[in-house]
Amino acid sequence: MSSVPVPPPKCLLKPLVVPFRHMFGPGPSNVPPRILQAGANPVIGHMHPEIFEIMNDIKSGIQYLFQTQNRVTLAVSGTGHTAMECAIFNAVEPGEGVLSAVNGIWGERAADMAERIGARVNTIVAPPGGVLTNEEIERALAKHRPALFFLAHGESSTGVLHSLDGIGQLCHKYNCLFLVDSVASMGGTPLHMDRQGIDILYTGSQKVLNAPPGTAPISFSDRACQKIFNRRTKPVSFFLDLKWLSNYWGCDGKPSRVYHHTGPVTAFYSLRESLAVLAEEGLEKSWERHKEVAEYFHTSLESMGLHLFVKEKVLRVGLMGCNSSKAHVDMVLAAMKDALKHCHENKL
Amino acid sequence: MSSVPVPPPKCLLKPLVVPFRHMFGPGPSNVPPRILQAGANPVIGHMHPEIFEIMNDIKSGIQYLFQTQNRVTLAVSGTGHTAMECAIFNAVEPGEGVLSAVNGIWGERAADMAERIGARVNTIVAPPGGVLTNEEIERALAKHRPALFFLAHGESSTGVLHSLDGIGQLCHKYNCLFLVDSVASMGGTPLHMDRQGIDILYTGSQKVLNAPPGTAPISFSDRACQKIFNRRTKPVSFFLDLKWLSNYWGCDGKPSRVYHHTGPVTAFYSLRESLAVLAEEGLEKSWERHKEVAEYFHTSLESMGLHLFVKEKVLRVGLMGCNSSKAHVDMVLAAMKDALKHCHENKL
Repeated sequence: MSSVPVPPPKCLLKPLVVPFRHMFGPGPSNVPPRILQAGANPVIGHMHPEIFEIMNDIKSGIQYLFQTQNRVTLAVSGTGHTAMECAIFNAVEPGEGVLSAVNGIWGERAADMAERIGARVNTIVAPPGGVLTNEEIERALAKHRPALFFLAHGESSTGVLHSLDGIGQLCHKYNCLFLVDSVASMGGTPLHMDRQGIDILYTGSQKVLNAPPGTAPISFSDRACQKIFNRRTKPVSFFLDLKWLSNYWGCDGKPSRVYHHTGPVTAFYSLRESLAVLAEEGLEKSWERHKEVAEYFHTSLESMGLHLFVKEKVLRVGLMGCNSSKAHVDMVLAAMKDALKHCHENKL
Repeated sequence: MSSVPVPPPKCLLKPLVVPFRHMFGPGPSNVPPRILQAGANPVIGHMHPEIFEIMNDIKSGIQYLFQTQNRVTLAVSGTGHTAMECAIFNAVEPGEGVLSAVNGIWGERAADMAERIGARVNTIVAPPGGVLTNEEIERALAKHRPALFFLAHGESSTGVLHSLDGIGQLCHKYNCLFLVDSVASMGGTPLHMDRQGIDILYTGSQKVLNAPPGTAPISFSDRACQKIFNRRTKPVSFFLDLKWLSNYWGCDGKPSRVYHHTGPVTAFYSLRESLAVLAEEGLEKSWERHKEVAEYFHTSLESMGLHLFVKEKVLRVGLMGCNSSKAHVDMVLAAMKDALKHCHENKL
């Protein structure tokens, strides 16, 4: 018998039961036992030297994943949305312009976030399932003169991969920072942060990387840092303030790290492990494998009489990281064949 | 050989090594294998029915932990700082007043956060290691007429536990919301959110609960919700917007949950497990155990000739959750005796 007004809930006296699921949707993807077990290592302090070494390994892994030499490269303690807010909160001051390329949900969310902090927001909207040309982007940059241009590389709501080539150069011509969301694409298709002139790039842990959701790699070019570290106003979030974060991650060259927040150390363990898996396979091999498996999937769908298109009602299939294999494609195809058979039967 | 400009980092080819540490500082505390292993369960989708059930269990567990019937009770996908910003971002509109009780680092951080979003911020400062009287608090409320009053229950930077009795009533007399940080105290000492008239209460997962850092329980009274859901402006953060969060956690009574962000599902597993451990022991027993162990520790320190005080240089010892046992006190005492012996030797 409990003497407190709110008694212990009975539901918590039942054991936790989690089913195994094949995660072939737009994310999160399956997490291999090796990465799950890395996250079950004992908790150590967020200011212990061993965790700083793990964080340094993560930084190197992200620099490799992003193909960047940027000093200010780290993982935000949160999911992709946190990284998105980290980018916008730091790069934009109230009253500055933000241009968002809307070709699905992510461009809309970036615009929403920028409006909340008092930015002047404009959008350029691509047709559903379509992309923007560099000419359209340049016209909008010239017209609105934004401080930041947002583009989602892999738009998970429509499945469209947007080309990035030449856009960084355009942004810089108009003195604008180029922010790219690569949550759904990173590691599965070529992306070169430095070569492509991307100023701020982020991704999530739970897609191609196959780590649990909860950490979000992000990197800032020198050009981005130059603007951010010379702001007139403080970013709205202390938790996401890049001055604090870059010190906590040892990116600011200062001899010691100051307590900022309690990093999710076990999530760092699994993120490090997922980056190690990628380093072992090699980025080019991962790109190649995702390409081959996607082609195999698309060809097989077409041979089933199905067509790939992006319109209002679609089936979204994601085969990312360890899920990107022909065997998994075959599983998805078998399930689809079975489902389609039942659809036909129901119609008769 | 790698053909990409940034080669795979060698440090990631070494296996992850995490030492076991006794976590007897101000937090995080040790995480029992049962809770670590719960977090190593397979990843499922953030919109799967099974995760909604786990989130419902977590809500019930937090209502028990906080001793509240509040409908809007959930866990933020982040650490204590994220919960702190969630409280302030939602409860305060630009230009409104915030009064922060500063008796250590947390009151200062709350003031910093509120300033960043354009609040009028005032502080009342307690002497180092001291507390504020209800008379001092009332005078400040009457003078500044804030919309929100912040107080840290357990100030981990000084080790001081602040009484909460009567303060909620004072706040309501002046039409002010009462926000309490219980990161370092929750579960280790009596706290009754509803009885004590607390409007917003949050804690972390990594102290008495013994879960890894990365989730932060938070609850909002009807009075707080009344203000928050009738704001004129949107909160600065989409990710922490309570309208979205309370729908995602099924607190808003709507029949279906809309995708907001990808919840850190494995962190939810371990949070649920930590709340289950607490429900099994019982809150009153946990309070009693922490009290007994603290008394045993304090008496033993005094018998060693040491005195408990709060001043500039202190040793901060935290024995929270599963670490709160006489056996662990004996370990700390033995280590301190050894250290003091060496201090004396070095002085000779």
